[in-house]
Amino acid sequence: MFTDGYDVIVVGGGHAGAEAAAAAANMGSRTLLVTMNLQTIGQMSCNPAMGGIAKGQIVREIDALGGYSGIITDRSAIQFKMLNKSKGPAMWSPRAQNDRMRFAEEWRLALEGTPNCDFYQDMVKSLLVGNGRVIGVRTSLGLDIKAKAVVLTNGTFLNGLIHIGEKQLGGGRAGEKASTGITEQLVDFGFDSGRMKTGTPPRVDGRSLNYEVMIPQPGDERPEKFSYLQTPVLSNQRDCHMTHTTKLVHDLLREGFDRSPMFNGRIKSIGPRYCPSIEDKIHRFADKDSHQIFVEPEGWNTVEVYVNGFSTSLPEDVQYKALKSVKGFENVKFFRPGYAIEYDYFPPTQLKHTLETKLVENLYFAGQINGTTGYEEAASQGLMAGINAHLKINEEEPFILQRDEAYIGVLIDDLITKGTEEPYRMFTSRAEYRTLLRQDNADLRLTPKGYAIGLAKEERLKRMEEKQRKSDAFVNFFRETSVRPEEINPILADLDSSLVKQSDKMFKVFSRPKVTIDHMLQLETVSGFVEDNELGRDVLEQAEIQVKYSGYIEKEKNNADKLQRLEGIKIPENFDYSKLKSLSFEAREKLNAIQPVTIAQASRVSGVNPSDISVLLVYLGR
Amino acid sequence: MFTDGYDVIVVGGGHAGAEAAAAAANMGSRTLLVTMNLQTIGQMSCNPAMGGIAKGQIVREIDALGGYSGIITDRSAIQFKMLNKSKGPAMWSPRAQNDRMRFAEEWRLALEGTPNCDFYQDMVKSLLVGNGRVIGVRTSLGLDIKAKAVVLTNGTFLNGLIHIGEKQLGGGRAGEKASTGITEQLVDFGFDSGRMKTGTPPRVDGRSLNYEVMIPQPGDERPEKFSYLQTPVLSNQRDCHMTHTTKLVHDLLREGFDRSPMFNGRIKSIGPRYCPSIEDKIHRFADKDSHQIFVEPEGWNTVEVYVNGFSTSLPEDVQYKALKSVKGFENVKFFRPGYAIEYDYFPPTQLKHTLETKLVENLYFAGQINGTTGYEEAASQGLMAGINAHLKINEEEPFILQRDEAYIGVLIDDLITKGTEEPYRMFTSRAEYRTLLRQDNADLRLTPKGYAIGLAKEERLKRMEEKQRKSDAFVNFFRETSVRPEEINPILADLDSSLVKQSDKMFKVFSRPKVTIDHMLQLETVSGFVEDNELGRDVLEQAEIQVKYSGYIEKEKNNADKLQRLEGIKIPENFDYSKLKSLSFEAREKLNAIQPVTIAQASRVSGVNPSDISVLLVYLGR
Repeated sequence: MFTDGYDVIVVGGGHAGAEAAAAAANMGSRTLLVTMNLQTIGQMSCNPAMGGIAKGQIVREIDALGGYSGIITDRSAIQFKMLNKSKGPAMWSPRAQNDRMRFAEEWRLALEGTPNCDFYQDMVKSLLVGNGRVIGVRTSLGLDIKAKAVVLTNGTFLNGLIHIGEKQLGGGRAGEKASTGITEQLVDFGFDSGRMKTGTPPRVDGRSLNYEVMIPQPGDERPEKFSYLQTPVLSNQRDCHMTHTTKLVHDLLREGFDRSPMFNGRIKSIGPRYCPSIEDKIHRFADKDSHQIFVEPEGWNTVEVYVNGFSTSLPEDVQYKALKSVKGFENVKFFRPGYAIEYDYFPPTQLKHTLETKLVENLYFAGQINGTTGYEEAASQGLMAGINAHLKINEEEPFILQRDEAYIGVLIDDLITKGTEEPYRMFTSRAEYRTLLRQDNADLRLTPKGYAIGLAKEERLKRMEEKQRKSDAFVNFFRETSVRPEEINPILADLDSSLVKQSDKMFKVFSRPKVTIDHMLQLETVSGFVEDNELGRDVLEQAEIQVKYSGYIEKEKNNADKLQRLEGIKIPENFDYSKLKSLSFEAREKLNAIQPVTIAQASRVSGVNPSDISVLLVYLGR
Repeated sequence: MFTDGYDVIVVGGGHAGAEAAAAAANMGSRTLLVTMNLQTIGQMSCNPAMGGIAKGQIVREIDALGGYSGIITDRSAIQFKMLNKSKGPAMWSPRAQNDRMRFAEEWRLALEGTPNCDFYQDMVKSLLVGNGRVIGVRTSLGLDIKAKAVVLTNGTFLNGLIHIGEKQLGGGRAGEKASTGITEQLVDFGFDSGRMKTGTPPRVDGRSLNYEVMIPQPGDERPEKFSYLQTPVLSNQRDCHMTHTTKLVHDLLREGFDRSPMFNGRIKSIGPRYCPSIEDKIHRFADKDSHQIFVEPEGWNTVEVYVNGFSTSLPEDVQYKALKSVKGFENVKFFRPGYAIEYDYFPPTQLKHTLETKLVENLYFAGQINGTTGYEEAASQGLMAGINAHLKINEEEPFILQRDEAYIGVLIDDLITKGTEEPYRMFTSRAEYRTLLRQDNADLRLTPKGYAIGLAKEERLKRMEEKQRKSDAFVNFFRETSVRPEEINPILADLDSSLVKQSDKMFKVFSRPKVTIDHMLQLETVSGFVEDNELGRDVLEQAEIQVKYSGYIEKEKNNADKLQRLEGIKIPENFDYSKLKSLSFEAREKLNAIQPVTIAQASRVSGVNPSDISVLLVYLGR
């Protein structure tokens, strides 16, 4: 059936697989998405939300490069919030609640609307490999499908094992089969594999909850959106609600600890540190009598509710009894209990920066298979794997984002350089240059790059260029235009900010912390400029950040440039560190294992000290 | 968790389970729908269409009683056709193509909007039974959930085994797990079980088809709809397309016959005679060089296409090679191959007319578990099982539809009286009184009954009464109003119908075969009456049928009344036929097994002759 073969085969249709398939296909590769069930493409397996701190930035980056996650999120959003708006703009993080069914449907339709992207429903049981290079996949029906490159995005399905209390069920997700065969084959090839664990809370019936006693969590009054393209903005939104656990709830949960697979040793693998189960929270923070619970609707119309903060693998009767004691949940009805799931992953130090495996050429890994957690982390890896698979088989330069260019760059560099022994989640604190990696400028940072490799379309580039042009002009306007005391002082007085005595450049006044763009717009000259030049909210925001944070941004740019120099010093391929006896023993071992590509990357390998870097620099003639 | 227990538990969320849960809940039973995957409620497992010959009538009957299938169909339809419009009104059969995703979503939302209907995701592994009565279910997590009645609607999931060529995969549907445990337990209880087989065609990528060379199959110009309530009417529709197989296609398929599980003995169970696989059609009708294929879109926006008429379990390479040779399919890309599935069913002679099992009290079976095929057949059984489960546990009279009242009555009476050894499908020919059981009058036949048992809402009854009142008035108008030759003769001349010489009642002219309601509407008096009384299309259609087919209808009513007399002669419960030595041996054996409730039912048991009925009538003192 598949005698022609494909350029790229993507295995799995979750966030990683969907982005990988879209990227490869949009760049021109004949692409096949193989999944166990075509009806579950783009499933939100856990919470019905996209974005959040650092994650929202990643979604914007995916969008800026020409990926779909931002568009899909906008099309299926039921609530939007810009988190951390009270902090500096590096911390601003967009987040959306989504309609779970709509999200999956929009993904399916988006992929169907992608020329070059074909679909096939079957379970991939093994890879076809020849001469150390992947050449296709073999399915459970015994079909061999040839391809020049393969992207594995198996999520939690590889030997997935679900735990609820003392019960264990094979499965990749609740109600779905696990996938077998691939891990075993990869281990035969010499890959290291490990087990990780993640969990999900109960889903409950919204009709059984008493929202009256919970605290409403509405969306932003002026909701924004993710995509830099023209996607819909929410005109109405659904509220979430907040409630919290109590000492009683904790006591009831503790009663089940002896039957918990987390505590009785049945689950040995490590779960996501920053998405802990409720039993984990109680156990680790024994002095806390209360934890927040966010009650998230699963869509516009459905009554199903996601109980964010109550992830658990305790026995279902314990889950139920405890949740009933939470304010507002007195009459709760379960749709299904929470559970933990263990699955195979492959320590990501076995990958190159392109997400190609070091052991098997043209084979790429993306998503949870690399030990990450989170839709956004998965989607961005899928995007990068899809891009690089396409580039590789067309003998083009790999596409690698640096740590000062994108969270995606930080993510992948962290994974392949440091590895991870617990599910890896992105945080702003992981980025050295987070002032540069903002949600507002992902298009300015990345769209030219996405366009250069043939992924981002011209429309996207034009929109970005127009935004850049306009915000530059606006910033220049502030630099060049003066404001007289009688104009600005009433505004400053209102803000309790010291008055100016003589005319000064607007830039200087605008730089004051208390003065926002909305204050500046009260000046006729400013609002006139905005009107004349038809500046949108995005341009105002961009210009405001450029003016108010110019100092920080400049400083980080300088630091990043210094790093760039180290990034520029390449280390030869397959460099044998053991011959450099002046390196510490640990450095020799780690560097041999990781094989960093640059001095900068070498400096980030755990166990490598500045003194080791000096040795290397000397050896390499610097 | 479920300490309170439920009135009714429904196992399975397909067409049967969804209707059962809705009916029981709407009548006031606290109802729990348990399904292996809450995301697959209301799945159209096979073709994306509802209705068709005799099946469309069933959907209207479900709707008239207060079920949901008609409403869901209308809300998710992408095309509507009234089949057989050129034949008598008994044959008119509504049929819709549906958006598969929307259909499932609408079912889910409809059930969520049903108070008293709760949901739980888990696999039911066994029934809890005490003293010969079902008292609940046990799930795969080991949860015991108590209930007063249980409805099993397991579809193809009980020990489901998928066949594609020589490959066999455990599963209830492609990509989904099979269900185990229930059959084994029921057999222990003394139930007979058997295996049946069904199949489904490949799903393909519409982008790979050449529609230019196929014949478009548009919907009706003036589309109607299913529900008697106010549901949407289609304002635009999607076309289907027709193409056909050729001798070459058949030859290519034949090449795989030695690897076909149908022909090499691997599949022993019997499939649906009237939905045969393409290999079956070629095999049985060896002289036919061509079969029709209907290319059905799976929704408004998706490119997925259902290849109606090409159901097959041949090896996927054979499927592919042959389908590629079909006109328009030269470049076809598969989403997934067709397959056959074998599953457990329970011969339905083990049931009462209420669909309660004879062996275990308060346990009901509905849908494919009873050996039927078809969404409509399943849905109607679910509805009746849900209704009767509710009535039984409230100690109310059972709700049984007679053969002259509804196709649903014919269906259930056939099943429990005659049993079935192959998947049972409804046809108009199965109904003795099909002139009475029309799609246009299901509301008049059944809504009063649905209302009387507390299922159909008052709005439904009022709409039906208004329709009845108006169409009676309209028929009376035709009976009482005369038409003069100079008015009607121009119309008759146009129709090449003999002219009238003197004034006559309109009824008489209207009764002529060529004269339709549209002709009558050309008369000012008629159109005036319609306008004054605000008669809708449904009333015009109803009146037209009443006028034009009054003779047939009257005759069938008389016949039905005769049957009613036999239906009125009850046979005592647990009657021992073996003591009636003048009965034929076969009649004694079959009657003892079936235990018919009335003489009429006894007469329909296969192997029972008129002479046996005479013996019984004499014995019972008639």
